[in-house]
Amino acid sequence: MAEDSVKLLGNWVSPYSLKVKWALKLKGIQYQYVEEDLQNKSPMLLQYNPVYKKIPVLVHDDKPLAESLIILEYIDEVWKQNPLLPIDPYERAKARFWAKFVDDKCVPALMAAFSKKGEEQERAVKEAHENLKILESGLEGKRFFGGETIGFVDIAAGWIGCSVQMTGEIIGINLIDAETMPLLHSWFQDFLEIPLIKECLPPQDKLLEYIKELHTKILTAAST
Amino acid sequence: MAEDSVKLLGNWVSPYSLKVKWALKLKGIQYQYVEEDLQNKSPMLLQYNPVYKKIPVLVHDDKPLAESLIILEYIDEVWKQNPLLPIDPYERAKARFWAKFVDDKCVPALMAAFSKKGEEQERAVKEAHENLKILESGLEGKRFFGGETIGFVDIAAGWIGCSVQMTGEIIGINLIDAETMPLLHSWFQDFLEIPLIKECLPPQDKLLEYIKELHTKILTAAST
Repeated sequence: MAEDSVKLLGNWVSPYSLKVKWALKLKGIQYQYVEEDLQNKSPMLLQYNPVYKKIPVLVHDDKPLAESLIILEYIDEVWKQNPLLPIDPYERAKARFWAKFVDDKCVPALMAAFSKKGEEQERAVKEAHENLKILESGLEGKRFFGGETIGFVDIAAGWIGCSVQMTGEIIGINLIDAETMPLLHSWFQDFLEIPLIKECLPPQDKLLEYIKELHTKILTAAST
Repeated sequence: MAEDSVKLLGNWVSPYSLKVKWALKLKGIQYQYVEEDLQNKSPMLLQYNPVYKKIPVLVHDDKPLAESLIILEYIDEVWKQNPLLPIDPYERAKARFWAKFVDDKCVPALMAAFSKKGEEQERAVKEAHENLKILESGLEGKRFFGGETIGFVDIAAGWIGCSVQMTGEIIGINLIDAETMPLLHSWFQDFLEIPLIKECLPPQDKLLEYIKELHTKILTAAST
């Protein structure tokens, strides 16, 4: 695979970029990575994703793709090795369901748990716990969402493991604990220990520093 | 296809149910239709979609599926005739992108244009126009989003044609006009005239009556 045929426009802290990095890594695809400054987006990003103006954008043979889950499906369709989605249509639908559930239900609750205070935060934490517990039901009887090996949902949801550990530390609330969510807890530990997954993660100390600063900024903005 | 192997739990006014009805019709699949009372959801619906408790739910060989776009992909994978998605991975990604854009961007703006008043409504109408204009760009050089025949995006977005006509009449604002959005305007007219599409539509006078009542209820609730 010629390196210049695949390009990823991303940002080092973005979990949406991370999903695409993981998928490309899993497929063994070499690519050129372009770090985007989200405060000062490049003309290339605006040209390639004029609708949302967001990262990640995957450019393959000069054709741009946006929206991380759509990019994952594309990667899986173009490069067949190490499949992300199962073969059976019903299992594929279930995988798409959980990946969408993460974006629609888990992410907003986790974001609110991180950025709110007081009663609003309590409600968000409760909602995050409920939604993560629902997500956990998709793991029953399996080591990974993909079964014995990682697949579409693992790639789509795996960053939560990394994120809740750091954000939980900052807000002083355990968002996934081993007692109430044993399957999810083991899953994210196992997932994040896989070498190819681990090596795509941003430097953890730098990320923690970034999230701490972000938290301070959000709370300062909310109280002014 | 044995009729009792496919069941659709839906609601007659729901555009999300309509998408699934259209897809099944296009594929020529016989199915049992179960009308759900959304004020008093059936135990069957709660059992089949415990996460969202929403219609539509497609039940195939006793296995339930939720989320309309995921159901459309499933239908397309199980019954190969009259394909919804193109074969080429990049074209498939583009179709998924537009279908998601409709749900994420067009629907909320159209809902707000319908349910808000004054300045809030003006902003929503402006946003709806902008997003519909963006959606129209996906039609350039084509009769349908699917090309010469209807496909995934037509099925996912087609109800907008029906809806904006009625809601526009009620709020007195033209949401898609032939001058500013000629391609989109022709598209929805052509689409809604296709016999198999037309025959799945709910009775138009009953639907108009329903939407009028809903509009009155929303405005009354907002002003009390």
